[in-house]
Amino acid sequence: MSNVFEVTILGVNSAIPVYDRHPSCQVLNYAHRYYMIDCGEGSQMQLSRYKLKRNKIDHIFISHLHGDHVYGLPGLLTSMSLGGRISKLTVHGPVAIKRFLAEIFRASGAYFSYDLQIIEYDVDKAHDIIINDELRVLAFPMQHRTPTLGYRFDEVISTKNIDPAAIKKYNLSISEIVSIKDGADLRRGKLHIYNELLTAPLSKPRSYAYCSDTVYDIDLVKHLAGTTLLYHETTYLDDLVHLAAERMHSTLGQAIDIAKRAQVSQLITGHYSSRYHNLQIFLQEGISQFAGLLLGEEGRTYPVESNE
Amino acid sequence: MSNVFEVTILGVNSAIPVYDRHPSCQVLNYAHRYYMIDCGEGSQMQLSRYKLKRNKIDHIFISHLHGDHVYGLPGLLTSMSLGGRISKLTVHGPVAIKRFLAEIFRASGAYFSYDLQIIEYDVDKAHDIIINDELRVLAFPMQHRTPTLGYRFDEVISTKNIDPAAIKKYNLSISEIVSIKDGADLRRGKLHIYNELLTAPLSKPRSYAYCSDTVYDIDLVKHLAGTTLLYHETTYLDDLVHLAAERMHSTLGQAIDIAKRAQVSQLITGHYSSRYHNLQIFLQEGISQFAGLLLGEEGRTYPVESNE
Repeated sequence: MSNVFEVTILGVNSAIPVYDRHPSCQVLNYAHRYYMIDCGEGSQMQLSRYKLKRNKIDHIFISHLHGDHVYGLPGLLTSMSLGGRISKLTVHGPVAIKRFLAEIFRASGAYFSYDLQIIEYDVDKAHDIIINDELRVLAFPMQHRTPTLGYRFDEVISTKNIDPAAIKKYNLSISEIVSIKDGADLRRGKLHIYNELLTAPLSKPRSYAYCSDTVYDIDLVKHLAGTTLLYHETTYLDDLVHLAAERMHSTLGQAIDIAKRAQVSQLITGHYSSRYHNLQIFLQEGISQFAGLLLGEEGRTYPVESNE
Repeated sequence: MSNVFEVTILGVNSAIPVYDRHPSCQVLNYAHRYYMIDCGEGSQMQLSRYKLKRNKIDHIFISHLHGDHVYGLPGLLTSMSLGGRISKLTVHGPVAIKRFLAEIFRASGAYFSYDLQIIEYDVDKAHDIIINDELRVLAFPMQHRTPTLGYRFDEVISTKNIDPAAIKKYNLSISEIVSIKDGADLRRGKLHIYNELLTAPLSKPRSYAYCSDTVYDIDLVKHLAGTTLLYHETTYLDDLVHLAAERMHSTLGQAIDIAKRAQVSQLITGHYSSRYHNLQIFLQEGISQFAGLLLGEEGRTYPVESNE
């Protein structure tokens, strides 16, 4: 059975919070470890609201330093400390994030009960980020009004999936399961069963990518190719394509175009302009153009599925 | 009839937001002009929740730069700009608030559609702050772990109250009302009525004071003397008096002691430690010691009444 891989949206609005919609924040859950992506004001309250434990977050990825993506970060980081967090936490973000946080923490006399590591990446090129053996992370440059990064998360499948029927049939022990997953045959005295008969074909790897904020940019396609689930900002509907270009945001149609070019399976909309009260129009306008379109909504959890 | 004078609490918790309680923020309403006091994370959302229009705020008073009193300020100020605010806004706060905001706005490329004025006060002495002819503001030093100010708001009663019965009896015109309020007699041809017969006695001036965060400090009494309504932090119940001293906070009993010494009429509790889930215990423990005790609760509006 494959690991849990899903993303929960905590904030889906651009700029100003309205209609009980919040600035950008998401929590990616891979195998019950949490990865936060962006952290707009109120994100720590949104974690509580949707019953996501903040101490399961070990990595936070910030796209850029516009307030609606980062003003919740100082409060979350200090609350973790006030809550007695011990385990290390790493914040990844574009250049200038170190000074931004350092100045705030200096002014407010913040102290940390845990090891807080802040890593800056320049936005001239893509970066492979090694955080553990489960997920491979790619930070890639995006074009916005300030240095901005997109993030892609690919699961690493290094072991075989064991056939649940085989576990039952041979009453496999934990140590047998571990060695079979590593590729060994099953040997018990005279009994010898080949590994291929005990394991299921490897599932196709799944991946999630986050692109917000960005202007319509075909250069993104090379970083997104084969992503199974993509969140790409749709700040505006297509009638405001000129406004999107001017403010370096994207329209629904542009996000769909990128999704198609990158051959992603599913696309989540989001980062909506405050002018849109009812969001269903994004689904209505886009679903005929792209069958894998999903409406980005706060509090909703989206499974990351393979292309199969 | 006297002007509206009331305070609405938007955030009443200390440190970490829990149980749907938020970090410190209040809105004082005097004659339908709003004055915000402190601005913890999420204050702009709390304004929306309780239907207080952010553009009616022309002055914001910050007590100190600990995150739970100020991390909502950058988002509120930038949202006002994104909302197209034109009128000037002034932020008052202790030393270091200018650099704090400047660094954040520089990092996030914030721009302002309106004139944003930031005024710093040193915390060695009290400051009379002249903002308009309706309210007199006093900023005074408090003892906490970082430079901290308390604020007192006194209404300025410069005109007489007209007797509503006189308006009806003599069918007074607007211009007559204005001149009578300024002290003139009523003269209409031969008719001459002395001012004293047309006006009601001046109501006693009302005042509101805000003390959070502060250690128990008798020096505050001289600044609070005669305040009609006082918000004084009660981070802990009295069994934790040693913890209060260590962290430079106050207990319920200490706040009551200050209120009695300053002869205030009513005292609002607040800035509760996250260890208290049910707040009723603050009222239960305190009401027998001080009849004017009011439980500080979010979303509740407290009229500022005179001592009469």
